[in-house]
Amino acid sequence: MEQLLKGIAEDFFQIRKEKPLIQQITNFVVQNETANMTLCVGALPVMVWEIEEVAEMVTHAGGLLFNVGNITWADSMIVAGKKANELGVPVVLDPVGAGATKPRTDAIKRIISEVKIDIIRGNSAEIGILAGAGGKIKGVEAVGGTEGILDAAREYAKREGFVVSVTGAEDIVTDGERTALVKNGHPIMALVTGTGCMSTTVTASFAAVQKDYFRAAVGALVAYGIAGEKAAAESGDRPGTFHTLLYDSIYGLTEEEIIGGAKVEFTVPSRA
Amino acid sequence: MEQLLKGIAEDFFQIRKEKPLIQQITNFVVQNETANMTLCVGALPVMVWEIEEVAEMVTHAGGLLFNVGNITWADSMIVAGKKANELGVPVVLDPVGAGATKPRTDAIKRIISEVKIDIIRGNSAEIGILAGAGGKIKGVEAVGGTEGILDAAREYAKREGFVVSVTGAEDIVTDGERTALVKNGHPIMALVTGTGCMSTTVTASFAAVQKDYFRAAVGALVAYGIAGEKAAAESGDRPGTFHTLLYDSIYGLTEEEIIGGAKVEFTVPSRA
Amino acid sequence: MEQLLKGIAEDFFQIRKEKPLIQQITNFVVQNETANMTLCVGALPVMVWEIEEVAEMVTHAGGLLFNVGNITWADSMIVAGKKANELGVPVVLDPVGAGATKPRTDAIKRIISEVKIDIIRGNSAEIGILAGAGGKIKGVEAVGGTEGILDAAREYAKREGFVVSVTGAEDIVTDGERTALVKNGHPIMALVTGTGCMSTTVTASFAAVQKDYFRAAVGALVAYGIAGEKAAAESGDRPGTFHTLLYDSIYGLTEEEIIGGAKVEFTVPSRA
Repeated sequence: MEQLLKGIAEDFFQIRKEKPLIQQITNFVVQNETANMTLCVGALPVMVWEIEEVAEMVTHAGGLLFNVGNITWADSMIVAGKKANELGVPVVLDPVGAGATKPRTDAIKRIISEVKIDIIRGNSAEIGILAGAGGKIKGVEAVGGTEGILDAAREYAKREGFVVSVTGAEDIVTDGERTALVKNGHPIMALVTGTGCMSTTVTASFAAVQKDYFRAAVGALVAYGIAGEKAAAESGDRPGTFHTLLYDSIYGLTEEEIIGGAKVEFTVPSRA
Repeated sequence: MEQLLKGIAEDFFQIRKEKPLIQQITNFVVQNETANMTLCVGALPVMVWEIEEVAEMVTHAGGLLFNVGNITWADSMIVAGKKANELGVPVVLDPVGAGATKPRTDAIKRIISEVKIDIIRGNSAEIGILAGAGGKIKGVEAVGGTEGILDAAREYAKREGFVVSVTGAEDIVTDGERTALVKNGHPIMALVTGTGCMSTTVTASFAAVQKDYFRAAVGALVAYGIAGEKAAAESGDRPGTFHTLLYDSIYGLTEEEIIGGAKVEFTVPSRA
Repeated sequence: MEQLLKGIAEDFFQIRKEKPLIQQITNFVVQNETANMTLCVGALPVMVWEIEEVAEMVTHAGGLLFNVGNITWADSMIVAGKKANELGVPVVLDPVGAGATKPRTDAIKRIISEVKIDIIRGNSAEIGILAGAGGKIKGVEAVGGTEGILDAAREYAKREGFVVSVTGAEDIVTDGERTALVKNGHPIMALVTGTGCMSTTVTASFAAVQKDYFRAAVGALVAYGIAGEKAAAESGDRPGTFHTLLYDSIYGLTEEEIIGGAKVEFTVPSRA
């Protein structure tokens, strides 16, 4: 475990050294927030979604992120994703609101069937629904219980060959064999829109510098979760102030804070 | 009056209990801000605008908001609005920039003619122009006097059968019979884009839990205005800081602050 | 020089007196931020991009800004731009990501060929590439050296007949004859997305009240850069807090701060 945490801290600072371009085809609600989160972890964001330029842009990218908050760009995602697959650029998918409407669920499934996804990061309802285990979603928020999500995520990862990252009160990351629980983060994050989307951005930034995507996904949630805890402690119960401090917090994160603050458990023997 | 204010405070906390989904087809300038405002009053936002999924999304919604900052989604609004009318979901319209261009004015009038609107919330120029009483708009801002707007709003409410909510230095809310002036708020709000749009979001959140839409519209402007005053007092003459504190302020609002801080007057005998 | 700086301070406060409408066809990542920046310098923003209304909106505008972050609106820009040219409304272009992809570079060149641009404001890679002098861009960020950019900018300004404003560690503004270096600003600005786009917004606001576009472009970078320095000093090394304070800072700027804080040098004799 100690070695994993040291590795996570290394990956975190590696992002600043490499400054990978993280290309994000994402929804219009949180573009600004996820771009700023990308900058604060040391990567460079580019948010273009136009189908005529997304594939060419991938040739400069270190990571490609799809956030399906707006389903209109599914075709752009597929075009960009095929190029990323060809070039070995990691692809991270945020299946926003899967299950909320049929066109939305269909669009997400189509992307998964046409592009090789490396990491999928969603809430328990989104992942549960896509994995076929069920779940209840209200708009884009998971509501209700999360029983069975751990097994469902593991099976889904095995079946699809990607890393599954489920965020919630307690996060789950699994590649089908290794499974980690990440207990970092803070409830106030639910009061700021896009905190889930930002965790996906951090995940894509880690994946751009760390080819063990399980480690990348765990590392992202650890670093982001600790940043959230720090910002929450500093801001009190004030969501606007918390939002501002979240950027400060992740930007200023130290190796000691990452290693000392990580709350990770393995539920099966880890090879990490 | 005391009873009305107690009712407003009840409605405010009822939003947090019910956590209604507020579906918002809105402009891209303020999506993030209005989503965060929705969360801070205790409701859940969903901001999809794609015509193929808006009607299905309404089946989960407690309120539907149209913000016509971008006229491109007029058709999506009409599709979603018809579904909302069928299901009894309250529909709140923000006629951004009515009168600024002909296509814009036409789009707004088309929405009003095809969907039963429950509350319309705009500035004095937007409402004046739509009501046929005239007004002067510069981009999306009302400029010039507001004489006659009170009578125009009352007539407009009576004619169209919706609640008219006019924000400005002094707000007017009327259902054609009851008319209230709300004197809460602060001039610094004009230095942050989307403060009008956010007041509409709060209005939709109140309407999701309070079927007396006159009371809902008054309550929203009272709560939002008091939050604005608190944030202004804490931030000094600093618009960026004010913007951040506005979320904190409405999130932390207490029953005492609402009842003690409300500045409401009735201009005709109230039945509330 | 002293006279130029006094003029810049005058222009800055003239914006608040005139409150010009700054029409911005811009990308969806930074619409909110640039609208707020517009308000904080005392102008009024309007962000519509729909082709059916942009020309009519120009009839109310004091300045027109194109930010080509999303190339989809190139046609809207051309329609609005032709109207602005006809009416004498200044047109300011932000060629976001020029050189990053071919469709993007082509769209930007097409806009320049069809609309008379008054000021172009970009980073050294964007301007270098458009000027034919080369440059290296990663997404929308200039990477690598900026040798030769001063001469390239001057030649480009002369050839195209517009003012060229190149921002970076040290800014360059030239109309082909006069050339100024502006050394205001702070490195933390690179950690907030849209700080370049916001400088273009301030430029358009200055151009709306000052027909000497060289002076307008210099003034905008001076005022914005000083505001950035103040916000950086107050926020420490914290990008989220800096972002919030940037609005406060430019809103509260005084004549003394502008004149005392300006770091401008002329590289050729100035006629200003």
